[in-house]
Amino acid sequence: MPSDIEIARAATLKPIAQVAERVGIPDEALHNYGKYIAKIDHGFIQSLESRPDGKLILVTAISPTPAGEGKTTTTVGLGDALNRIGKKAVIALREPSLGPCFGMKGGAAGGGRSQVVPMEQINLHFTGDFHAITSAHSLAAALIDNHVYWANELNIDVRRIHWRRVVDMNDRALRAINQSLGGVANGFPREDGFDITVASEVMAVFCLARDLADLEERLGKIVIAETRDRKLVTLKDVKATGAMTVLLKDALQPNLVQTLEGNPALIHGGPFANIAHGCNSVIATRSALKLGEYTVTEAGFGADLGAEKFLDIKCRQAGLKPSAVVIVATVRALKMHGGVDKKSLGSENVEALEKGFANLERHVTNVRNFGLPVVVGVNHFYADTDAEHAKLKELCQSRLGVEAITCKHWAEGGAGAEGLAQAVVKLAEGEQKPLVHAYETEAKLSDKIRAIATKLYGAGDVQIESKAAGKLATFEKDGYGSLPICMAKTQYSFSTDPSLMGAPTGHVIAVRDVRLSAGAGFVVAICGEIMTMPGLPKVPAADTIRLDANGQIDGLF
Amino acid sequence: MPSDIEIARAATLKPIAQVAERVGIPDEALHNYGKYIAKIDHGFIQSLESRPDGKLILVTAISPTPAGEGKTTTTVGLGDALNRIGKKAVIALREPSLGPCFGMKGGAAGGGRSQVVPMEQINLHFTGDFHAITSAHSLAAALIDNHVYWANELNIDVRRIHWRRVVDMNDRALRAINQSLGGVANGFPREDGFDITVASEVMAVFCLARDLADLEERLGKIVIAETRDRKLVTLKDVKATGAMTVLLKDALQPNLVQTLEGNPALIHGGPFANIAHGCNSVIATRSALKLGEYTVTEAGFGADLGAEKFLDIKCRQAGLKPSAVVIVATVRALKMHGGVDKKSLGSENVEALEKGFANLERHVTNVRNFGLPVVVGVNHFYADTDAEHAKLKELCQSRLGVEAITCKHWAEGGAGAEGLAQAVVKLAEGEQKPLVHAYETEAKLSDKIRAIATKLYGAGDVQIESKAAGKLATFEKDGYGSLPICMAKTQYSFSTDPSLMGAPTGHVIAVRDVRLSAGAGFVVAICGEIMTMPGLPKVPAADTIRLDANGQIDGLF
Repeated sequence: MPSDIEIARAATLKPIAQVAERVGIPDEALHNYGKYIAKIDHGFIQSLESRPDGKLILVTAISPTPAGEGKTTTTVGLGDALNRIGKKAVIALREPSLGPCFGMKGGAAGGGRSQVVPMEQINLHFTGDFHAITSAHSLAAALIDNHVYWANELNIDVRRIHWRRVVDMNDRALRAINQSLGGVANGFPREDGFDITVASEVMAVFCLARDLADLEERLGKIVIAETRDRKLVTLKDVKATGAMTVLLKDALQPNLVQTLEGNPALIHGGPFANIAHGCNSVIATRSALKLGEYTVTEAGFGADLGAEKFLDIKCRQAGLKPSAVVIVATVRALKMHGGVDKKSLGSENVEALEKGFANLERHVTNVRNFGLPVVVGVNHFYADTDAEHAKLKELCQSRLGVEAITCKHWAEGGAGAEGLAQAVVKLAEGEQKPLVHAYETEAKLSDKIRAIATKLYGAGDVQIESKAAGKLATFEKDGYGSLPICMAKTQYSFSTDPSLMGAPTGHVIAVRDVRLSAGAGFVVAICGEIMTMPGLPKVPAADTIRLDANGQIDGLF
Repeated sequence: MPSDIEIARAATLKPIAQVAERVGIPDEALHNYGKYIAKIDHGFIQSLESRPDGKLILVTAISPTPAGEGKTTTTVGLGDALNRIGKKAVIALREPSLGPCFGMKGGAAGGGRSQVVPMEQINLHFTGDFHAITSAHSLAAALIDNHVYWANELNIDVRRIHWRRVVDMNDRALRAINQSLGGVANGFPREDGFDITVASEVMAVFCLARDLADLEERLGKIVIAETRDRKLVTLKDVKATGAMTVLLKDALQPNLVQTLEGNPALIHGGPFANIAHGCNSVIATRSALKLGEYTVTEAGFGADLGAEKFLDIKCRQAGLKPSAVVIVATVRALKMHGGVDKKSLGSENVEALEKGFANLERHVTNVRNFGLPVVVGVNHFYADTDAEHAKLKELCQSRLGVEAITCKHWAEGGAGAEGLAQAVVKLAEGEQKPLVHAYETEAKLSDKIRAIATKLYGAGDVQIESKAAGKLATFEKDGYGSLPICMAKTQYSFSTDPSLMGAPTGHVIAVRDVRLSAGAGFVVAICGEIMTMPGLPKVPAADTIRLDANGQIDGLF
C-alpha cells in the first residue's frame, strides 16, 4: 500500500466547482482558493435557511490509545460509502492546526484511501482561517494593553487580565512571559503567556456562531479581565468586537474540498477538545445539513469527551440532533484497553479483546443514554484476525444488542465502508427518540459536573477544589449559572489518570480549576494538567521538512 | 469627490483571468483567491526567464511631510496612463501590513481614481503572504529555543540570541519581554521581544529572493545567535530553512490584482523601509518586466532612502536598472519644506515654494548622479494655484533642466497622468547611461556609510559610535565586508533630525548601531531611534471598524 501522501498526490481531483455542483452550490457562491478549494459565500449560506435538514451522523470513538482508532478516516470513508449507496452525503470536519505539523510528523486529513484533498494545503495555511483567528485574538490583546496604557478608563486590574496571547506554533518558551518591560513607552509590566491558536476562545466562538451577527455578539461577551473592584470586563468594553468581526468575516465562510472519491467535504474551524468543545463549526455542520441528505461529522477524543460535548454543548446551542452515532473501535485498541502492550499487538489475543471490550461497552451505553441509536464501526488493521473480529461482533450483539461492522475504508476507500453505511441508514431512517442531555441547564454548575462524572465516567465522587468552587459560585452570581459544562480532562481514560484504561469505576474526579468562556457559552472544568501550548520534541519534524527537487513537500506526512 | 472606499466599491472589476490574459498569463497559471485576486504559478514565472525585459520605471519622492506626496497614487496613475497611451504597462507595489490598519485610519492601495482593487482584501489578509512570513519566522523562533531546551548541541549563548519574534499587529506590550518563565518545562529564561512582521528579516529575504531555491539559501544564511565562544549561528544550523521554505512556497508566488482602470498590478512583499530596503519583491518586479513593455514600481520613503536602497541594494542584487525615475513632489509639501506650517498650506505662497524647492533639487541631483534620467511628477491638490505650478515648472527647468509635469490622476485616473506618461516614455526610450552606484561593494563598510551620507545626504561628517565600529570590524572579519549598506534613519530629513526640512548641509550623521542581515544581504546602519514595533494610538481605528448592516466594512478607510 502506498503512503498517504503518495495516494493523495496520485489522485485526480475534480475542479471544486464540479464538487459544489453535485450538492447544488452555484459557481457564483464560490470563492476559490486555487483550483480545488473554495469558500462558500455568506449570502448563499443564508439562502439555505428555509430548506429542511438532512440527517446528521456523528462519528465518535472509544478512549484513544497509541494503537490508533481512525475516527477521521472512518468519517471520510463513511461519507464516501453513503454516496456510493446512493445517498447524497456531505462530510464536515475540523481544520488541522499548523503548529503541531512541525513537531510530530503527520497530517490530519484522514489516511489511506479515505482522505480529504488537497492534503498539503489543508494541513498548512489552507484558506487562512486560523491566521485570521490569530489576528483577531492578537488585536484584542493589543487593544486591552493599549487601553491600560493610555488612561485605563475601565480601571482594569493588570494583575487580573485573563486574556492571554496566541500563536499557531508549538512554542513552549512563550507559555509564561513578563511583558511590557523596557520602560514607560512600553506600558505597565505584567505577567502573561501564549496559548496555541486552537485554544483561543475566539476559535470556540468561531465554531459555535450561527452567523456574523452571532459571532460579533459572542465576541462581545468574552470576559477578558476584572477591574480593581472585581467587575468583569468584556471584549465589548474595550471596543474590540467590530474590528475582530471584520478580521473574521471571510474566514467564517465554510471551506469546501473533496474526498479522494470526489465527494464534498466542509472543513471549517478546529477548537481544542479539552478546554473547548472540539468540533468543526456550527456554520459548516448546518450548511452541510441543508446541502446533503446525510451529513457525517466527528467529535474530538473519545465519546466521553467528544460526543458528550457535541451533544450537550454544540447540539444544544445550535438546535441539532444526530440521527445515528458511529462509535469507532479497533481490535488493536481494545486489546490495549485489555492490558496488551503496544509491542504485542501483532498477535491474536481474544481474551484481552474481551477484557478491553469494557471500554467500548461504556461508550456505547453512554451514547444510548442520550437516546441515540448506535452502531460500532470496527476499523480493520492488517494484523487483526478473523477470530478477533468475530468475537467483537458477538460481544456487541450479545452484551449490547448493537451491530458491529468491520470497515476497510483505509485500504479500499468508500467501498470498504458500505456495510457501515447501510447500517447507519437503517438506524437513521428508523425510529428516533428525543435527545436526552446528560444534565439540565437549570442545574447548579457543580451538579452538572457531577452528572457528567458519575453518569458518563463511572466516577464514585467529584471533588471540586475550594478555589474552583468559589469561582463557580461567582459565575452563578454573575449570571452564568445556566451555561453548559466543558470538561477538560485526559482523553485516555474515563478517569483523570491517563494510565487507567478500560472502564474504571469508583474513581474520584478532582476539579482543580474552572474557567468562564462566556462568549463560547460554557464553563470549563479543569481536571488535571491541561496543556494549552505544546512544545516541540527533541527531533522535530521541521528538521526534515523541505521542498524536494520537484518542488514537492517532503517530510511533512 | 466620493471617498476612496466609495470609488473602489463603485468600480466594476474584471474577472482576474481577463486582466491576466492582457499580459499573456494563461488561465492554468493562475491560483485564484476569489474572483479578483490570483497568484501566478511558480512554473509559469520560471518559463518567462528567457524573455527580454521591458523598461523599468521607478517612482520615488521628495522627503515626506504631513502634507502628503502621493507616491503610490502616482505609481498607479502612471501605470494606467501608460496603458492609455498604448504601452502595455504592469504596476509592481508592496503589500500593506495588517497591524497598522487598526491604529491610524487608512489603507495603502493608492487613492482617489488611482487605486488598486479589491482594496479591502488587499489591506486585510489578502492572500495570506504576511501570515506565511509570520509563521515561518515564528517556527524559526520556536526551533531556536527548542534547540537550547533539549541539548543545545550548538552551544548557543542564550544572552546572545538575536532572532526576536514577530506578530503582524501594533502591540507595544511585546516590544520587550522575559520569556521561558514558569519552570524547567518551559526552557531557559531569557530576554526577548517582538517586532512587527514587516520588520522580519524573513520579509527582506522574501523580497530579495529570485526563486524558491534562492529563498532557502538566503534563509540559511540568516545569523540568529552567537555561541558561548562567539561563533555565529545561522538558521541553517538549527535546521529551520526547509520547513520555512515549505511555509513560504505558495506565498512566494506574486499576487495579481487590477487598477480601477483594469490594468494589471503585482502586489507582493512589503519590507520595512528603514531597517530593510522597502520595495516589493524581486520576483514581482522581474515578472512584471517579462510581462509588460513597461513596469512601474515605487520605493519606500523619500529618494534619499527609498531610491538609494532600490538602486544600491535591490537593483544590484537582482541585476535591474530603471530606464527612468519619477520624483513625486507636491506644491504643498515643498511649501512645508520652505517653512510653511500645515494650517497655512491653503494659501498661495510662491516664495516658500521656491525656498522648499531645495529639497526636490537635492533629490533630483542625487538620482541623476546614479546616471538615471529624471522627470518630476507634480501631484496636483485642489488648493494649489496656477502660479505655484508655473513657478515649480520654471524652477525645475531653469535650475535642473528637468521637466515637471502636473498630474491629476487622483481626480481623473490615468487620463490625469498622460502627460507624465509621455515624458516617461521619452526618457526611457532616449539615451541610457550605465548605472553608477553610490559606492563600490569592495569599499570598507564604514566608507560605504560615509559615501551615502556625504554624497546623498549633504552631511559634513559621519560619526560611528565605538560599539558600532567594533561590530563593523567583526562583520568584515567574518566575511560580510562586501555587503551593501541599508541606512535606517528618519525619512523626514536628509539629516537625522526629523525637524530639519529642506536641504540641510554640513550636519553629522551619527551611526548608533549596526546590524547584520546576512540573509537579505546587507548591513543595517542605525542612525537615531528606529521603531520596529509600533503602538496603537489613544483612540485606535479599531474602535470604530465594524461590519455595517449590509456586511460592508465600515471605518477601515
